[in-house]
Amino acid sequence: MTKDLRKRVVIENVKPEIDCGSFPIKRVVGEKVVVEADVFCDGHDTVSASLLYKAQNVKDWSEISMTFIENDRWRGEFLVEKMGTYYYTLEGWVDYFKTWQKDFKKKFEAGHDTRVELLIGASLVDDSLGIALTRDRKRLKELGNILKGDNLEEAISIAVGDELTELMNKSPNKKSATRYEKELSVVVDRPKGLFSTWYERFPRSSSSLPGKQGTFKDLGRLLPEIARMGFDILYLPPIHPIGKTHRKGKNNSPVANPDDVGSPWAIGSEEGGHTSIHPQLGNMKDFEALVRKAMDLGMEVALDLAFQCTPDHPYVNEHPEWFRKRPDGAIQYAENPPKKYEDIYPLNFETDDTLGLWEALKSVTVFWIKKGVKIFRVDNPHTKAFPFWEWLIGEIKRDYPDVIFLSEAFTRPKVMYRLAKIGFTQSYTYFTWRNTKREFMEYLAELTHTETSEFFRPNFWPNTPDILPEHLQYGGRQAFVMRLVLAGTLSSNYGIYGPAFELLEHEALPGKEEYLNSEKYEIREWDWDSGGNLRDLIAIFNGIRRENPALQVTRNLRFYQVDNEYLLFYGKATDDLDNIILVVVNLDPFHTQSGWVTVPIGEFGIDPDQPYLVHDLLSQDKYIWHGERNYVELDPRVVPAHIFRLRKKLKRETDFDYFL
Amino acid sequence: MTKDLRKRVVIENVKPEIDCGSFPIKRVVGEKVVVEADVFCDGHDTVSASLLYKAQNVKDWSEISMTFIENDRWRGEFLVEKMGTYYYTLEGWVDYFKTWQKDFKKKFEAGHDTRVELLIGASLVDDSLGIALTRDRKRLKELGNILKGDNLEEAISIAVGDELTELMNKSPNKKSATRYEKELSVVVDRPKGLFSTWYERFPRSSSSLPGKQGTFKDLGRLLPEIARMGFDILYLPPIHPIGKTHRKGKNNSPVANPDDVGSPWAIGSEEGGHTSIHPQLGNMKDFEALVRKAMDLGMEVALDLAFQCTPDHPYVNEHPEWFRKRPDGAIQYAENPPKKYEDIYPLNFETDDTLGLWEALKSVTVFWIKKGVKIFRVDNPHTKAFPFWEWLIGEIKRDYPDVIFLSEAFTRPKVMYRLAKIGFTQSYTYFTWRNTKREFMEYLAELTHTETSEFFRPNFWPNTPDILPEHLQYGGRQAFVMRLVLAGTLSSNYGIYGPAFELLEHEALPGKEEYLNSEKYEIREWDWDSGGNLRDLIAIFNGIRRENPALQVTRNLRFYQVDNEYLLFYGKATDDLDNIILVVVNLDPFHTQSGWVTVPIGEFGIDPDQPYLVHDLLSQDKYIWHGERNYVELDPRVVPAHIFRLRKKLKRETDFDYFL
Repeated sequence: MTKDLRKRVVIENVKPEIDCGSFPIKRVVGEKVVVEADVFCDGHDTVSASLLYKAQNVKDWSEISMTFIENDRWRGEFLVEKMGTYYYTLEGWVDYFKTWQKDFKKKFEAGHDTRVELLIGASLVDDSLGIALTRDRKRLKELGNILKGDNLEEAISIAVGDELTELMNKSPNKKSATRYEKELSVVVDRPKGLFSTWYERFPRSSSSLPGKQGTFKDLGRLLPEIARMGFDILYLPPIHPIGKTHRKGKNNSPVANPDDVGSPWAIGSEEGGHTSIHPQLGNMKDFEALVRKAMDLGMEVALDLAFQCTPDHPYVNEHPEWFRKRPDGAIQYAENPPKKYEDIYPLNFETDDTLGLWEALKSVTVFWIKKGVKIFRVDNPHTKAFPFWEWLIGEIKRDYPDVIFLSEAFTRPKVMYRLAKIGFTQSYTYFTWRNTKREFMEYLAELTHTETSEFFRPNFWPNTPDILPEHLQYGGRQAFVMRLVLAGTLSSNYGIYGPAFELLEHEALPGKEEYLNSEKYEIREWDWDSGGNLRDLIAIFNGIRRENPALQVTRNLRFYQVDNEYLLFYGKATDDLDNIILVVVNLDPFHTQSGWVTVPIGEFGIDPDQPYLVHDLLSQDKYIWHGERNYVELDPRVVPAHIFRLRKKLKRETDFDYFL
Repeated sequence: MTKDLRKRVVIENVKPEIDCGSFPIKRVVGEKVVVEADVFCDGHDTVSASLLYKAQNVKDWSEISMTFIENDRWRGEFLVEKMGTYYYTLEGWVDYFKTWQKDFKKKFEAGHDTRVELLIGASLVDDSLGIALTRDRKRLKELGNILKGDNLEEAISIAVGDELTELMNKSPNKKSATRYEKELSVVVDRPKGLFSTWYERFPRSSSSLPGKQGTFKDLGRLLPEIARMGFDILYLPPIHPIGKTHRKGKNNSPVANPDDVGSPWAIGSEEGGHTSIHPQLGNMKDFEALVRKAMDLGMEVALDLAFQCTPDHPYVNEHPEWFRKRPDGAIQYAENPPKKYEDIYPLNFETDDTLGLWEALKSVTVFWIKKGVKIFRVDNPHTKAFPFWEWLIGEIKRDYPDVIFLSEAFTRPKVMYRLAKIGFTQSYTYFTWRNTKREFMEYLAELTHTETSEFFRPNFWPNTPDILPEHLQYGGRQAFVMRLVLAGTLSSNYGIYGPAFELLEHEALPGKEEYLNSEKYEIREWDWDSGGNLRDLIAIFNGIRRENPALQVTRNLRFYQVDNEYLLFYGKATDDLDNIILVVVNLDPFHTQSGWVTVPIGEFGIDPDQPYLVHDLLSQDKYIWHGERNYVELDPRVVPAHIFRLRKKLKRETDFDYFL
């Protein structure tokens, strides 16, 4: 208590601060952290505030002067330059010198006798001698003496002059400064945490021979084309041995035929568990070769962490204590009453051997990391205990800060956000079920303009092996293009499940949003060259994303006005406005829609009478626009979206030639 | 860490919780505290949640079952029944029995074999034996045995029956329950903290003899009329000796005439300081008699805590270390450069003798408490250090929980809110400068429907000795009535500075919102019987507040629709809807305004075809209304407001007689 008696400055309402500082915010290397806080004191004294930050293992804080905004609010920012954890906090203090100088000027202008005031200033200068940099002390002493001296005119010009101001501001007297009581943290990922382009593919459906189980080698032959399409992450569903007991048949049939291959998520057989490879895919060498080949093509292989077992999984015999036992001695299978999933034994996170189980799952993760896998899509994390994920991700990222975890939790919003808070790098979202303009605007506002955006990094998927949404079933090719553009321009992280997506696969189980003849339960043959496929368009689209830094961030999304309920109009820009992207999407896959968009030319630094060029990067069409309101028309059967790059350096009519 | 491994339940987003629990919320005796939180766990298990609370010095928590609302949100509430501090926190746990029972029903209905399921239930019952109340154990054991027994039909009926459910819910198995990590607090004041009616009056202007300085005895003679007007707090500006050095003259003139009486806020002379009484007001016995007489009339005397000194204050000689010294040896006077206030020496809250100064100011407060004063209006608290107030109010309320502090901080919003957080019971507001419908709706929404309402209790003043707002200068008698009604119906705490208010005093310093010939600097003679005075109206109005509990709370305010920008329409109701008040105010003091109000009859439980009576408690007019939309018309020259009590117990036409 006593030491705080004279701490007059209050620091409160600090943003970002997640759940009172219980959780870090997220950034990638090269991003900035903007911190705001209310900083004020009693009375009329002037306060100053600093933002302090440091990377982990660095001893000393770096200090940034905060800027006053309005209404006692201050702002500062810093850049994160390496992976790992950064810390930040704040400091605020009564700035006696600034207070004195401000008051001195008013008194001098009002013609008051300033002799005593100058002496007060001199004593503040004297007080600072013990704090100032050694090389500044001599000069400060001289200036202090001038304030005290007989030459009033000189003293006054020193008092209000830049030299003294700068020297005093350099080493402020932080007597009784208030340090914010918390040190807040930032988890800094590599850039791929924020900008990534995922391609999901079942390796067993990669054979070019009809009816044959594909292998890692088969998949390897497809890598150049996957890379050409512009993907940088190739995510494989589980590659482990598949259980036989209660194996599911085609279309999730409860009874399998002898030749049914089973679901890759039914992990474990006498051939091994989570660190083994399904023998029909190849061996560990084949896998490592695939990882290397992907790397050579600029891609990374991502694996699935699906922490569950079949009755045939080695853990069942080796660690029966990790499973729940029923009173009849049987192991408890998964269920969602009245449904039973007898092919799956969930791990019991309430086992008495908690740490044993956790360490085993960590060792699985580390095993694959050592095989070169640094990206994991985590299956149903919301059905495993939160403390486990917080522990696992913390342990892994301490040693491997470049590892990325994608949370596949399609569940209630607070559960999804909790998983993001406790460490998941990216998260699946409700994007797949958002359709109308209003739905997009509300959901994206929540994801990009609330505190959520500080810890939850969305990853948008138009489809997954589990979800064939209604609009793709009935919307035709244009619906696929529309969803592709929405996914990859609204969110800087997105992915598709291929080749179902680029081949426009749209046959569903009747009345459901699930694929008919799903690859989850059988091997599919795909004709990658079938007519109307989206491979070239995807290559163009991912190229646009790669070449335009504005699309490599999600939090910069802004929606703009357009007077048609079926048109969605939004933009993204880099901070320096060097790269401005404007997107118009026709949400109606069946009809041409047109309307007037309102371009925020003021925000973009464009005069009302200055023409500017919008260059559609998808179609290569170019338009000269003027002023805020401009006309657009989109026939979905041609192309359901414009992705404009705005080029504003048009000074004279003749400059148009430069662009056209 | 290890002990939390299996704590699967998350508790977050707890409301109310001020600044991460740094500050208490506020209630008065008899109010309830409604607590909400997100409580959830991984997977599909059912969770349960409890709200725990206790009064200070009570050892054990009381426990209230929380109710699920939606989207993982839970709610619970408790009543505070005595002054002092209460604490609350939360507990959430996986409810294994409820989970089992829910699943059991589904499996039973789906026709599964339930024998093993019943054994699982039996083991849950067995687990509970160690937790259950002694008197329940025998029966639980019997029920458990039935579940395990051969009579399947009986076992099933027990499994889903009420008896087992109730017994199990009574003593839930909180294995691995999560306790919220914070204990949050509530400061509970006496009811007057929330419902009070203040009358400010300068005792020295209380004489009935022209030109004579009034005394406590003179003021005592006015008490019956002040009580008749319905006030319950008589607040006196400082009653201490007034300094002579640099005394201000009439109308704040920098030079006083010899007969000028000075400002009561210029505290301290050779006759004493903050614990002395101005000799011309009387002596301590007179003061104590005044306090007693007020008490007999149902009123309390409130004093001003104005912690500042004149150059003549005894502290200046006794404790020069409590003041700032200038380099010329003089003591630093108050200033707001270039303005100087040489009649005031501020106390230096950065003195090296911080605790000495603080203890002295505490002793001043305790001195007056011992004279029977339990309510303090604190002058300019925002010019003294925040830690001082937090300490002082904490110290005082520990020993005297019935003391009320009103913060007179007319300053920036965050400073005002900070003072409320650190302990002030009530606060002055921006009400005085809010005029339009939109301004009222926005400001009152902030005060009553945000977290602010948990710690900031507004006190609305139409005027103060410092402020004669523009609308009272020009708006005529009807503006006074309008502001009275607004102040005392929007806010359950309000006050007026009299007799300037009830006598419609509206002469201002030219171009300012300050009184001409302000009582702050001179003695005024008031003709309390002058024509048009508001004394009777105020008595009626305060009677309405006293008789209608809906008006004794502020957080229950709701604005409703009315299709006229000059009409403000709002209501307040008790939780049980026994008392419903609807207020319509004409904000235009010059013209009749009319419009259609939309009464939220659904909220009030009134059928669309059911007539109801609105009884204007100001005018005694009665109207039968039907449905939502009803017509109102207000001529401000007659009366600028309706204060309706809504009476809805009209069943048949003939019932009207009961009301009419």
